[in-house]
Amino acid sequence: MINNSIEEFFEQVITVKLSPQRDSVDIIDQTLLPGKIKRISLRTKEEVWEAIKKLRVRGAPAIGVCAAFGLAVTVNGLTSDDFEAFFAGFKEIKDYLASSRPTAVNLFWALNRMEKKVLESKDLPVAQIKELLFDEALAIQSEDIAISHNIGEFGFGLMKALKKEGRELGILTHCNAGTLATAKYGTALAPVYTALEHGWSGSDVHVYCDETRPLLQGARLTAFELSQAGVTTTLQCDNMASMLMKQGKIDLIFVGTDRVAANGDIANKIGTSGVAILAKHYGIPFYVCAPSSTVDLDTPSGADIPIEMRDPSEVAELWYRERMAPGGIDIFNPAFDITDHELITGIITERGILYEPFSKTLEIAR
Amino acid sequence: MINNSIEEFFEQVITVKLSPQRDSVDIIDQTLLPGKIKRISLRTKEEVWEAIKKLRVRGAPAIGVCAAFGLAVTVNGLTSDDFEAFFAGFKEIKDYLASSRPTAVNLFWALNRMEKKVLESKDLPVAQIKELLFDEALAIQSEDIAISHNIGEFGFGLMKALKKEGRELGILTHCNAGTLATAKYGTALAPVYTALEHGWSGSDVHVYCDETRPLLQGARLTAFELSQAGVTTTLQCDNMASMLMKQGKIDLIFVGTDRVAANGDIANKIGTSGVAILAKHYGIPFYVCAPSSTVDLDTPSGADIPIEMRDPSEVAELWYRERMAPGGIDIFNPAFDITDHELITGIITERGILYEPFSKTLEIAR
Repeated sequence: MINNSIEEFFEQVITVKLSPQRDSVDIIDQTLLPGKIKRISLRTKEEVWEAIKKLRVRGAPAIGVCAAFGLAVTVNGLTSDDFEAFFAGFKEIKDYLASSRPTAVNLFWALNRMEKKVLESKDLPVAQIKELLFDEALAIQSEDIAISHNIGEFGFGLMKALKKEGRELGILTHCNAGTLATAKYGTALAPVYTALEHGWSGSDVHVYCDETRPLLQGARLTAFELSQAGVTTTLQCDNMASMLMKQGKIDLIFVGTDRVAANGDIANKIGTSGVAILAKHYGIPFYVCAPSSTVDLDTPSGADIPIEMRDPSEVAELWYRERMAPGGIDIFNPAFDITDHELITGIITERGILYEPFSKTLEIAR
Repeated sequence: MINNSIEEFFEQVITVKLSPQRDSVDIIDQTLLPGKIKRISLRTKEEVWEAIKKLRVRGAPAIGVCAAFGLAVTVNGLTSDDFEAFFAGFKEIKDYLASSRPTAVNLFWALNRMEKKVLESKDLPVAQIKELLFDEALAIQSEDIAISHNIGEFGFGLMKALKKEGRELGILTHCNAGTLATAKYGTALAPVYTALEHGWSGSDVHVYCDETRPLLQGARLTAFELSQAGVTTTLQCDNMASMLMKQGKIDLIFVGTDRVAANGDIANKIGTSGVAILAKHYGIPFYVCAPSSTVDLDTPSGADIPIEMRDPSEVAELWYRERMAPGGIDIFNPAFDITDHELITGIITERGILYEPFSKTLEIAR
């Protein structure tokens, strides 16, 4: 399955697509990865809802694009030419899709943007509104592609600066912020894919993927997509990153983020703060790849970001043949942690790379 | 199964015992933990060999004690009264047991000590030599208990110094260096059990157990034995330790070690160095619990300790319902890592707590 053409890779691995006939959303069923690459076509609102609910599609940008395409496709099947009746049907489908993952901000954002388009266009014929909804969903997709491509170019600049002739550039990443989570380039992996577009070979770069317990996104998704792209890929348990850094194998660290606070503290997948502390200890640059939409200037610092605590069974049971922890104990299972801005070398946005003082430079997101 | 009496706990969880009739070695089958506590009796040399080989008993001191008891029990069944014939039988069993785990230094050490006892006693009647072998095996066991009890007392002194009235003392540990790995007290967990012996309740102390990927000794063994002892126990994924430290939940860190180099660098389970770097970042004391037998003054530094690289399948497949990593990628799976002496607050031995300069203080092990 390995291929070296980056375009061919994107053709295979881009996770959400509108079908050419515009009658379905075609997604890779990520619950089957890495064992099986299977595309499924979502034609009904129930199928779209179920795919988001069951994490067949995941990653905030990818969910937003999937919901927008899903709304456009299913609304297109509404039969009334009367705006009021059409809008009632639209709202019903929109609210139904919004109920698939109650905490997914990007999902609501994309669906609300689609609703705004309908309301702006209410004096147009329904058939034309349906066309505009396809256009809006495609715009959501292409904007995400453009943003992450910019992040990729900025990050690639850092890679070029650190690359030594005749030696692979070692990059460590945590969790999955790649193609499978977005419309195309990912965030943390965008610089790597951009390097391939600029003619680097898959062996010019070597990406070390933290497996990312408890949900193993690094093993199941990141290692999968990078190896599909022909990039030299190593998988390690999270606790092995220190040894890799000590051995001098890591030149640069790229991670994604869920939210950037006004002082530059970031929330990202649990374990990110530990990676940043190790990076500081070993003197390795640690960059956060963050679309400016993730910057929240209303959140003063990381201390103001609530951390979701998840089900203990994810640690003790999920994936395992049998339960791997005794009963009767407490299990600590936060989904995210906060990385202090003092530990962050720079924040790569689509508008440029930001450095300290982040409290000033993050103003670009306003 | 929780009980609050520490003696009752040891009665249940001490992993290797000589049966009162001296006709078997009774062990907890650790391959069934944490789901099931089952004691099995090993009566033949084949049963002892298989138990060590298949990791039904593991942990260097526990393996040594099991092999010594196993040798005493099976040699006791030899029928000849002639020393030469007896010694030939002894050697055959000893060499056979030594082949169970080819890299287990403690196994060879215990078996060689038993052989020395035979050779010292060769002018005595065979029946008396058999008795002396039981005595020697019991001495190996009681010496391990005495050493780890001393480590426990020294470590408990640190715990008392850090304990605040009305607040539990938070301790983090990595991997398993507890009762299940030794004759009784463990090394890293010895201070905790010693605290219980001194009247602390299980809720005066709160032990946070790193699950310890890839083999999950923290989840399967450490969390199990501590909860059996009635100690407040939390299990977390390795990458969650940073957040616990940041939240102020960890007052003290105890880990075990496989080898201490002459400059104080230590080799221990993969991930230990990362814990030490986090501890330094957050200003938390990091202590290594090390019987002086683990100090190797002939090894100048950690750079001279070879690190065993283990099978990739442990990361990608073991325990899982299905393979969790794609094919065609490299997997990094070191068994141990080196923690630099600069990161170590102190090394707790049975003879006292050592501080920098370790290159001088470790001379006590000579």
